[in-house]
Amino acid sequence: MSDLFDLIVIGGGPGGYVAALRASQLGMNVALVESTHMGGVCLNWGCIPTKALLRSAEVYHTLGHLQEYGLSASQPSFDLAAIVKRSRGVAERMGKGVAHLLKKAKVKTFDGRGKLAGRAGEAHKVSITKDGKETGQIRAPHVILATGARGRQLPGLETDGKLIWGAREAMTPDTLPKRLLVIGSGAIGIEFASFYRDLGCEVTIAEVADRILMTEDAEISAQAHKAFEKRGMTIHTGAKVGPLKKGANEVSTTIETAKGKVELTVDRVICAVGIVGNVEDLGLEGTKVQVDRSHIKTDEFCRTGEPGIYAIGDVAAPPWLAHKASHEGVICVEKISGRSPEPLHARNIPGCIYARPQVASVGLSEEKAKAEGYKVRVGRFPFLANGKAVAMGEPEGMTKTVFDAETGELLGAHMIGSEVTEMIQGYVIARTGELTDAELMETVFPHPTISETMHEAVLAAYEGALHI
Amino acid sequence: MSDLFDLIVIGGGPGGYVAALRASQLGMNVALVESTHMGGVCLNWGCIPTKALLRSAEVYHTLGHLQEYGLSASQPSFDLAAIVKRSRGVAERMGKGVAHLLKKAKVKTFDGRGKLAGRAGEAHKVSITKDGKETGQIRAPHVILATGARGRQLPGLETDGKLIWGAREAMTPDTLPKRLLVIGSGAIGIEFASFYRDLGCEVTIAEVADRILMTEDAEISAQAHKAFEKRGMTIHTGAKVGPLKKGANEVSTTIETAKGKVELTVDRVICAVGIVGNVEDLGLEGTKVQVDRSHIKTDEFCRTGEPGIYAIGDVAAPPWLAHKASHEGVICVEKISGRSPEPLHARNIPGCIYARPQVASVGLSEEKAKAEGYKVRVGRFPFLANGKAVAMGEPEGMTKTVFDAETGELLGAHMIGSEVTEMIQGYVIARTGELTDAELMETVFPHPTISETMHEAVLAAYEGALHI
Repeated sequence: MSDLFDLIVIGGGPGGYVAALRASQLGMNVALVESTHMGGVCLNWGCIPTKALLRSAEVYHTLGHLQEYGLSASQPSFDLAAIVKRSRGVAERMGKGVAHLLKKAKVKTFDGRGKLAGRAGEAHKVSITKDGKETGQIRAPHVILATGARGRQLPGLETDGKLIWGAREAMTPDTLPKRLLVIGSGAIGIEFASFYRDLGCEVTIAEVADRILMTEDAEISAQAHKAFEKRGMTIHTGAKVGPLKKGANEVSTTIETAKGKVELTVDRVICAVGIVGNVEDLGLEGTKVQVDRSHIKTDEFCRTGEPGIYAIGDVAAPPWLAHKASHEGVICVEKISGRSPEPLHARNIPGCIYARPQVASVGLSEEKAKAEGYKVRVGRFPFLANGKAVAMGEPEGMTKTVFDAETGELLGAHMIGSEVTEMIQGYVIARTGELTDAELMETVFPHPTISETMHEAVLAAYEGALHI
Repeated sequence: MSDLFDLIVIGGGPGGYVAALRASQLGMNVALVESTHMGGVCLNWGCIPTKALLRSAEVYHTLGHLQEYGLSASQPSFDLAAIVKRSRGVAERMGKGVAHLLKKAKVKTFDGRGKLAGRAGEAHKVSITKDGKETGQIRAPHVILATGARGRQLPGLETDGKLIWGAREAMTPDTLPKRLLVIGSGAIGIEFASFYRDLGCEVTIAEVADRILMTEDAEISAQAHKAFEKRGMTIHTGAKVGPLKKGANEVSTTIETAKGKVELTVDRVICAVGIVGNVEDLGLEGTKVQVDRSHIKTDEFCRTGEPGIYAIGDVAAPPWLAHKASHEGVICVEKISGRSPEPLHARNIPGCIYARPQVASVGLSEEKAKAEGYKVRVGRFPFLANGKAVAMGEPEGMTKTVFDAETGELLGAHMIGSEVTEMIQGYVIARTGELTDAELMETVFPHPTISETMHEAVLAAYEGALHI
């Protein structure tokens, strides 16, 4: 076997392995270099195992509300080890699936760290190292960097794997902390807060910004805040967390907000304060690849400044989402193969948070739309007025739409409540297909579904909502 | 108050009350005549209360599978009366909501049966009777007939409210039958079969057609059949049910299929063998309103042959779906008011079945598309290969797309599995907005969601599926 490929992908996360699979479909001879886990953080230590954990927590929560459904059971309990084991099992199963797909697609996989190692004529060279030792070199005219990202470490808040957890430790607890501090209220922090709260932990959230879920629409963020407080969480916004003082089996700190200073002692801390791209030790020196604050700069087809070198997914730029990464993988490879893919439109990329309640959105928030100078029409519809939501026992939630008042363009859509992560795709399809407001109003949403709130929220923007 | 209105709506089901609300929004002075329940069968004895029942059953089912989630509880049990009470409570709550909406919209409601009673100049007269006695007459230039439909009674299979149930009795059982025969495998029959099976009944389904869920794509129907058998149901297709012999507290009959004749004794029978429109005693004699096999003939704007008389919803034509009725209500009223609504396209109306597994679809099945002469491209994607479905513990299901191979039009989409009733709207939006296959492929579906199967099933139709 030659060491010359049509394409080398460095990094086996959702961006990397999807790029490799698509390239193989298009007839390329592909190498994929991955140092740790095929499937990347997402599949092994991110999206997938957390969804398994959250499912267990959701069912456990339901156990506490059986009477509402005319049901009963005694002594509801959970086995933390079994919950974690299930989660790891799901990750393992999906990881094996990816390995199988790559094998079937005849992608040549290399176990090790990949690094650019200069040129060999028309080709770029990639050096592979394992345990610090170079195990080989391969070449290809095209190299995709898909090395992902990792949790940001802030001075004084560094994770230690014991008392101060990153996502990985938070996903595999030995014992349940009684008291938990979550620093950061993005998707990752909030999902862990939701999980541990459902299992009975005292959960405190500290967010430096003036509201939780900063990237979401402010109204949705406020509803989420209210819902989490109702669940018994303590939330500090505009909060400065002091140094973490570690005891033998607990951590003390201070949280300072506009309201004053709070002393807090907890058993564990989860630190989820952002993401930095894995741009180190990639051999970028001497190339024209440009890095801006831990992210590789690319154009709309994922091309870096260096011909033949591409970057996709978390290492390239936010949003740090698996579906953005995999879609970039497809676009990048199709462009390399001479096709004419449509570039990715950042505002058509949905975001999902799998807490209770769930949050999902696409496009501009109301405030961002206004800040960009749009005159907006806003529609809202509460789940409380939706028959299916009430029948399901899930009347908390809202769907909100933001239209350009002048053109009727759907600028953004924002949902909070049961199953919204499965529903948001309808609005994504609408944005991708550039549906008019009139077409959304003409759409027949099935009854009885919670998705009817998506229709009503459009009608509401035009004073035509029926059930409110 | 004058007895002259701009519009009279006869029937307060989802078609009727939505027509009244929309007319009020458009500035009309509206009367709504309803004899029984505001909200109609759908809200009081159909969609909404059954969803409440099915939710209880679903949670009860989950109680039997706690170990899979790392959970446990002892003595899981249900209280049938409490389950029914909850269901009735949900229906009542939503019914009150509708009454409130009508009041807020200043719709004048009349308690009684409405009937056309000739003309008075430019206006149609409507007579209102209560308990067989005329209580008044009102007039309007426009009258919408929205009287709905009822379960079909077949000779020898008539419901008696005691041993042989229609939907209403099936929704309010006093005691749980140990053995249950469901005749008919449309949405109604299948949902009751699913509910009672989850509560532990021995369920037998008899369907005269050669497969269950006849209106669904054959492949989906076959998957549903398999799933229901796996749940322990006995299913007879191509089945002729003999006369029902009633005992004191049980019913005996024979079921004849190609495989032979089976004797069967059950505690209760649910008869769900179709729907007939409520076209009787509407005063249609002497008008140009035409009736075809229990349904009123209308054009694309719900106009009957008689100027000023309209029909919407179940009384007009299949599909017998609340969302079709309410959408017709909007279209009909907007047309009356001089607007230019887009007519309803039958193939953009989704259908949902809320069994375990759920089924949802829109547009043409593969076989219907072929029968219409289309050259089709078909894509399929199993839930088993979807990370979220596996993480949720819901790996059974499939998404299937049918495209016109020549134009790339999405002819139909068919889903079976967890939460598909909330997801199908994405395909409905795609059909309504006439998205191309390419646009659907460019759409970024959020990860990890089961809705990703909707993307993969499109890619699969073009040999581009990534995770299979």
